[in-house]
Amino acid sequence: MANSKKIPAIVLTSGGLDSTTCLAIARADGFGPLYSLSFDYGQRHRHELAAARRIARHFAAAEHRVITIDLRQFGKSALTDAIDVPKDRDESKMTAEIPVTYVPARNTIFLSYALGWAEVLGVRDVFIGVNALDCSGYPDRRPEFLEAFERTANLATKMTTEAGPSARTFKVHAPLVHLTKAQIIRRGLELGVDYGMTHSCYDPDVQGRACGRCDSCLLRKKGFAEAAVSDPTRYAPV
Amino acid sequence: MANSKKIPAIVLTSGGLDSTTCLAIARADGFGPLYSLSFDYGQRHRHELAAARRIARHFAAAEHRVITIDLRQFGKSALTDAIDVPKDRDESKMTAEIPVTYVPARNTIFLSYALGWAEVLGVRDVFIGVNALDCSGYPDRRPEFLEAFERTANLATKMTTEAGPSARTFKVHAPLVHLTKAQIIRRGLELGVDYGMTHSCYDPDVQGRACGRCDSCLLRKKGFAEAAVSDPTRYAPV
Repeated sequence: MANSKKIPAIVLTSGGLDSTTCLAIARADGFGPLYSLSFDYGQRHRHELAAARRIARHFAAAEHRVITIDLRQFGKSALTDAIDVPKDRDESKMTAEIPVTYVPARNTIFLSYALGWAEVLGVRDVFIGVNALDCSGYPDRRPEFLEAFERTANLATKMTTEAGPSARTFKVHAPLVHLTKAQIIRRGLELGVDYGMTHSCYDPDVQGRACGRCDSCLLRKKGFAEAAVSDPTRYAPV
Repeated sequence: MANSKKIPAIVLTSGGLDSTTCLAIARADGFGPLYSLSFDYGQRHRHELAAARRIARHFAAAEHRVITIDLRQFGKSALTDAIDVPKDRDESKMTAEIPVTYVPARNTIFLSYALGWAEVLGVRDVFIGVNALDCSGYPDRRPEFLEAFERTANLATKMTTEAGPSARTFKVHAPLVHLTKAQIIRRGLELGVDYGMTHSCYDPDVQGRACGRCDSCLLRKKGFAEAAVSDPTRYAPV
């Protein structure tokens, strides 16, 4: 596809398996230049920020921006607070309940910043690697939430409210939303993603090795097993 | 109203005329305790942050929180960037066009943080002092935007998605949305608001005195004139 025909897009990147696959899909679908947006929100798993930077470079993102937002001041999440990350949980429990790793209003805040940057760049396409299957039961990952945000965004900004009726509106792309973890991994491998670069663990050790036991590790492991491909994750010795 | 019957609420406060009136209305309508939420977003008119703190204390807010968010990194607004604040503009121009003082996605970002804090506090009512009349033509002040955000918020959070069908949903209150500036001032004066405490100017001098010529000053002046009450604002000498 000729460069002049490409559509620029912002991709929310966390350094994890899902958002990296999402970046690969955006590129494969002909979007470009790609703008990578990460958040430093006081998360325990800060290794993911280094991974996000490396991955943005790997995918030749036009820009990789890290926005610092202090969600710790709200507390009440095991990802930012002094609450223990749950380990070795049963999968039925993971997906049925909203876990303590839920960060209040996280995706709403992330998408709001993406909208602000999109407006400044004149970009109308934002990719987010959420998926509603094979993930912890966070409410802000569901398609109905994403559609509601998209509607809000189109009413919120100068670019979409001043533009004429034929102008393109703001669009939230969530290409993984209906995929299982195994399907995400297979799609990523087709697109050449090196999952050894990605980082999913909520509670890595000091060397950045995955714990293998938090919800995120367990879902990731299961994904590789179901996709019947080898898992390149570096796990800490048990 | 007995304390036990009160409903807690978060009020977005800027130190300005509108949000201060909104705080007075929330209190008069029986909401409490009140949580005051301001943003330090690199705005030029930082005197408003000091005003917001004084006003929260005056209204005996249970807590006043200032969240730092760096909208300057997105640039493209006269409120945060090195673009001149327009002066002496004709009112028709002010309300018809979206001005350069528009901050990309500002109210979407502000409401997203309010939602995060609301969830942590277990609060389901957020007051925002936007008004769609007598204000600059920002898209994120219109009722349809606020309704869309409220819908998004109700799909975003644990508190509204786990609660039973009879549970109260998240509500965005915008009691000023259909009022003129003069009506807002009259309502505030009925409720005992001291507008000398409030600060609206986009471009105050070093002593914090209002310029009297930016859109915000011009609309405020006109409001006091139309309400036929004296204007307590300290203006810089011309």
